[in-house]
Amino acid sequence: MDTPFANDLIFPQGIPSKYDNYVIRKLSSLRGQFNNLQAYEQMLAKEDTVIYEVYEVKRPEIPGELLHGVSIIHPGKVGNEFFMTKGHFHATLETAEVYYGLKGQGMLVLELPEGDWAVEEMRPGRVVYIPPRWAHRTVNTGQEDLAFLAVYPANAGHDYGTIEDQGFRKLVVEENGQIRVVDNPHWHSPDQRS
Amino acid sequence: MDTPFANDLIFPQGIPSKYDNYVIRKLSSLRGQFNNLQAYEQMLAKEDTVIYEVYEVKRPEIPGELLHGVSIIHPGKVGNEFFMTKGHFHATLETAEVYYGLKGQGMLVLELPEGDWAVEEMRPGRVVYIPPRWAHRTVNTGQEDLAFLAVYPANAGHDYGTIEDQGFRKLVVEENGQIRVVDNPHWHSPDQRS
Repeated sequence: MDTPFANDLIFPQGIPSKYDNYVIRKLSSLRGQFNNLQAYEQMLAKEDTVIYEVYEVKRPEIPGELLHGVSIIHPGKVGNEFFMTKGHFHATLETAEVYYGLKGQGMLVLELPEGDWAVEEMRPGRVVYIPPRWAHRTVNTGQEDLAFLAVYPANAGHDYGTIEDQGFRKLVVEENGQIRVVDNPHWHSPDQRS
Repeated sequence: MDTPFANDLIFPQGIPSKYDNYVIRKLSSLRGQFNNLQAYEQMLAKEDTVIYEVYEVKRPEIPGELLHGVSIIHPGKVGNEFFMTKGHFHATLETAEVYYGLKGQGMLVLELPEGDWAVEEMRPGRVVYIPPRWAHRTVNTGQEDLAFLAVYPANAGHDYGTIEDQGFRKLVVEENGQIRVVDNPHWHSPDQRS
């Protein structure tokens, strides 16, 4: 489509009225990402719960074009760790991304290839800027769906493998009723990669 | 700033809590853009009214980075033509833009260098995709502020001169209480450029 187009987001979650690609991520697709392996297996044995859904609008994947989509992360926990996205680097590492919060409460966990990390709160009406090179994972810390609009360069691509291998350095968990950002005991630095 | 950052939009209009650049466009800066020259001069003689304001967040202007900002167009008319932005092509023509409506009602008027045109409605919760190469102008057709979030490649740049010279092919006016898109009698095609 080379003509301008509009896309009404249907609330409360902001699901786009038009989309080309629908991604559904269930618990089974996040194997190895949640810290509490026993809690993960017990939960999966009961049901392969839907963790998050993504509605994507396609454009040519070339520099100058932009992609946009809406992600919806459902509320819940695996052990004491909140439901979250797989998280990824951009395959074209030097590309940024802009998130705009539509619904719910969450945390964006970010990490550089060198291991530096950062966390930003997400909430409706908040723009979060993900500079080039930062891997990003979104965590739903609330009681309702967390939904946000994402805009990024169409040539960014996705590198899921690095995170699947090394994890994020920080986890977002509930401890004594508080939301806490803690070290991931399973994380290993890039130079320890298998 | 090379670390992630967040930017709460302050409603009702969605003014960013942090911004690096504030642009205010008064009636005098839109000379030659409104069709009714007499109405324009009469209005300007009374007051150099604020037509629109833009709050921009700076990033390095290189491919892969994104810029974002919020534009607020006030309600009003010059003659029967609604208040609007100057409108521009991107200096790097092959770059897209994403708008997200925050408040109010409006129209996005678009045009290719070859003269093809398009119009998209703007309203809260609506994403509008401006593909590469399309000039864009936003028009407030409502009774309150029109506000939207814009995200675009940081290397896009702005070419205001082409529109200042040739105008947009279409105007958005009120006729008998109706919002209408009509031909701009002052428009001239690119091959008639002075």
